[in-house]
Amino acid sequence: MNFDKLFQAQLDTLKQEGNYRIFAELERKCGEFPRVTNHSKGQREVTVWCSNDYLGMGQHPKVIEAMVSTVQDCGTGAGGTRNISGNAWHHKQLEAELADLHHKEAALLFTSGYVSNWAALSTLGSRLPNAVILSDALNHASMIEGIRHARCQKVIWKHNDPEDLDRKLAALPANATKIVAFESVYSMDGDIAPIKEILDVCDKHGAMSYIDEVHAVGMYGPRGGGVAEREGLMDRITLIEGTLGKAFGVVGGYITGSHALVDFIRSFASGFIFTTALPPAVAAAATASIRHLKESSYERDMQKRQVARLRARLDAEGIPHERNPSHIIPVMVKDPVKCRMLSDILMEQFGIYVQPINYPTVPKGTERLRFTPGPLHTDEDIEYLVLALKTLWKQCAIAHAVA
Amino acid sequence: MNFDKLFQAQLDTLKQEGNYRIFAELERKCGEFPRVTNHSKGQREVTVWCSNDYLGMGQHPKVIEAMVSTVQDCGTGAGGTRNISGNAWHHKQLEAELADLHHKEAALLFTSGYVSNWAALSTLGSRLPNAVILSDALNHASMIEGIRHARCQKVIWKHNDPEDLDRKLAALPANATKIVAFESVYSMDGDIAPIKEILDVCDKHGAMSYIDEVHAVGMYGPRGGGVAEREGLMDRITLIEGTLGKAFGVVGGYITGSHALVDFIRSFASGFIFTTALPPAVAAAATASIRHLKESSYERDMQKRQVARLRARLDAEGIPHERNPSHIIPVMVKDPVKCRMLSDILMEQFGIYVQPINYPTVPKGTERLRFTPGPLHTDEDIEYLVLALKTLWKQCAIAHAVA
Ligand SMILES: Cc1ncc(COP(=O)(O)O)c(C=O)c1O
Ligand SMILES: Cc1ncc(COP(=O)(O)O)c(C=O)c1O
Repeated sequence: MNFDKLFQAQLDTLKQEGNYRIFAELERKCGEFPRVTNHSKGQREVTVWCSNDYLGMGQHPKVIEAMVSTVQDCGTGAGGTRNISGNAWHHKQLEAELADLHHKEAALLFTSGYVSNWAALSTLGSRLPNAVILSDALNHASMIEGIRHARCQKVIWKHNDPEDLDRKLAALPANATKIVAFESVYSMDGDIAPIKEILDVCDKHGAMSYIDEVHAVGMYGPRGGGVAEREGLMDRITLIEGTLGKAFGVVGGYITGSHALVDFIRSFASGFIFTTALPPAVAAAATASIRHLKESSYERDMQKRQVARLRARLDAEGIPHERNPSHIIPVMVKDPVKCRMLSDILMEQFGIYVQPINYPTVPKGTERLRFTPGPLHTDEDIEYLVLALKTLWKQCAIAHAVA
Repeated sequence: MNFDKLFQAQLDTLKQEGNYRIFAELERKCGEFPRVTNHSKGQREVTVWCSNDYLGMGQHPKVIEAMVSTVQDCGTGAGGTRNISGNAWHHKQLEAELADLHHKEAALLFTSGYVSNWAALSTLGSRLPNAVILSDALNHASMIEGIRHARCQKVIWKHNDPEDLDRKLAALPANATKIVAFESVYSMDGDIAPIKEILDVCDKHGAMSYIDEVHAVGMYGPRGGGVAEREGLMDRITLIEGTLGKAFGVVGGYITGSHALVDFIRSFASGFIFTTALPPAVAAAATASIRHLKESSYERDMQKRQVARLRARLDAEGIPHERNPSHIIPVMVKDPVKCRMLSDILMEQFGIYVQPINYPTVPKGTERLRFTPGPLHTDEDIEYLVLALKTLWKQCAIAHAVA
């Protein structure tokens, strides 16, 4: 049997649509980020403008030191699942740190944010009696797959619309266990959920609240607890989920909540139980990063400054970008082929790396470039980026006029 | 709403059954493994007898050096998904190493073995036309969940029984895309699949073969390519899946296969696309480990020696254990409460750590202790373990007689 033909047929369709993905091959150098070496075509230094290491913590001396010294002390791996010989003192420490970050009783670590969403939502939805998960229409793939896996009743409510949520909750039977799942910062559009209004609706209907703060932890709130911390709402949320792989600069995911909730997921979630624990060194690095960002606002402040600066410069030069209250600056292209082309030109002619964002990460027809300025981008980096975009936009306008 | 009551009710049931899990809290020290510090009750040095760091590679100097130097060079995290700024040169290197290990055209890295199984099987099952997945009855949770997520037709065949597989394949319509999923070493019983016979049946029916070599990679075959390498069968298998978290001593998972197959999973698998890439340092450490075990058989040979030695000593002392052709030595207890009790006594009175294996890792009523001797267990460690078990077995016999 030639199975390759089956695979190739679907890959060809992707290619025809312009949605076939080509990964840039990068090498980071400590102390030089956002400058990296691009190995994709020869070797070339480029500036990264689309990293989710939002604050540059992946090269912070404290985080590196914690990871290095723990590898040297304890080795490279955990050696087992959390239950069978893989549970290190460092995992417990990190979970205590995370519970404290969100002012919750307990926390549970997963191998990734993806797995934490998938495992927690599928366990809640499949094990609670008469569970109904009410999911924001733009929730992340990891939540969607978790809800799908739960095989409970699922209701989609309009994105960031508490009134629609209210109506949909009101339509459910009284004996349903209602779980409202949403994000704080939506990473592709950069809009932020009306958390308070959503929680009011949850309270009105006796629903559990589940928030994904993946793109907000480390970044918002006086200690980096996320948007819910900034708005004083953490104690009203049943479950807060986050990642260690974005602003915290390492890898891994987690949930926080009551002792009983966390113990429940710990005891029943397949995606938690049946997998090797994260290396103790990863846990130690994440702990160091969270501790630093609990005390230091410098990185957050500098990032806000550079985000505002890039927005202002784009405005001044008339380069269109989407408005939103977060750190994410989307420039809509709305065509997968053009989006890839712009990205290629930026890389090749300007040494600027911004990956085209295409399907399935965003819906077809909403392809975009997505800029994430950080504290390590200099004012000169911003000038240079704006200059490059200006040049490209002018060329596009000319191309348009001629076509 | 008091949701904690809902959670607590199910936790109470677990506790009543004796299936509530208590994790030992361990601290490894490089160079001292399998000796670790147990933080659970005071601090105490214990010997680990249930690790999946089967060969002690988690503290191998080459692996540690690769991880440390890459953290120092490149930082602690990848900073993004593979597609969006997180694809490092180190990931590509590791994938090339893995493809070579299994003599396949290509390989793809995942955050864990769990995710690699879940993502690959759910993508194959959901995207291939008329897919039917034929799953060995004792497949691992990660495969079961992947198949479940695929929502394609699923057929369970009798564990390690090619004749039953043959019958079940014969009953399927000709136009079905048949995917036969199984493991090489089953980790809880330690039995090994009749791979050749299974592949013969697959060929007869034009079925794709999917093998999980998680407990075999690094351990079997002249270069650590797994049982299929040892038996010269790698080229007959469509997809070989493995982990970097057990014998290789780090963390992560992977698949290998044809270019088209790997590109297909890379392009469509949600669990691959929507998650932060593993840190470059983890990839570098895994690469170093694989390279070492491709060339060195010393660790494998020493492990085999210690496995044989423990078996012989258990036999000599009349301590019952399950026979199997692998490195796993299960001692059946068949009761969750007794299993936990034996484990507690071994830990407290003898400083021997072997986690009770209970539901849901094994079916209820098949609770066991599971010993995994490694090259770093000394002959004295083995003597001491056998002595401890002998003492306990004698006490149990006495307890039995009195009761
Ligand atoms: C909203 C959201 N949730 C969860 C995840 C998954 O987190 P992780 O990258 O740690 O798997 C992502 C992105 O990767 C995300 O954007
Ligand atoms: C057979 C089998 N497959 C897959 C896995 C998952 O691998 P990982 O620990 O890398 O997630 C495990 C154990 O954890 C396993 O026993």
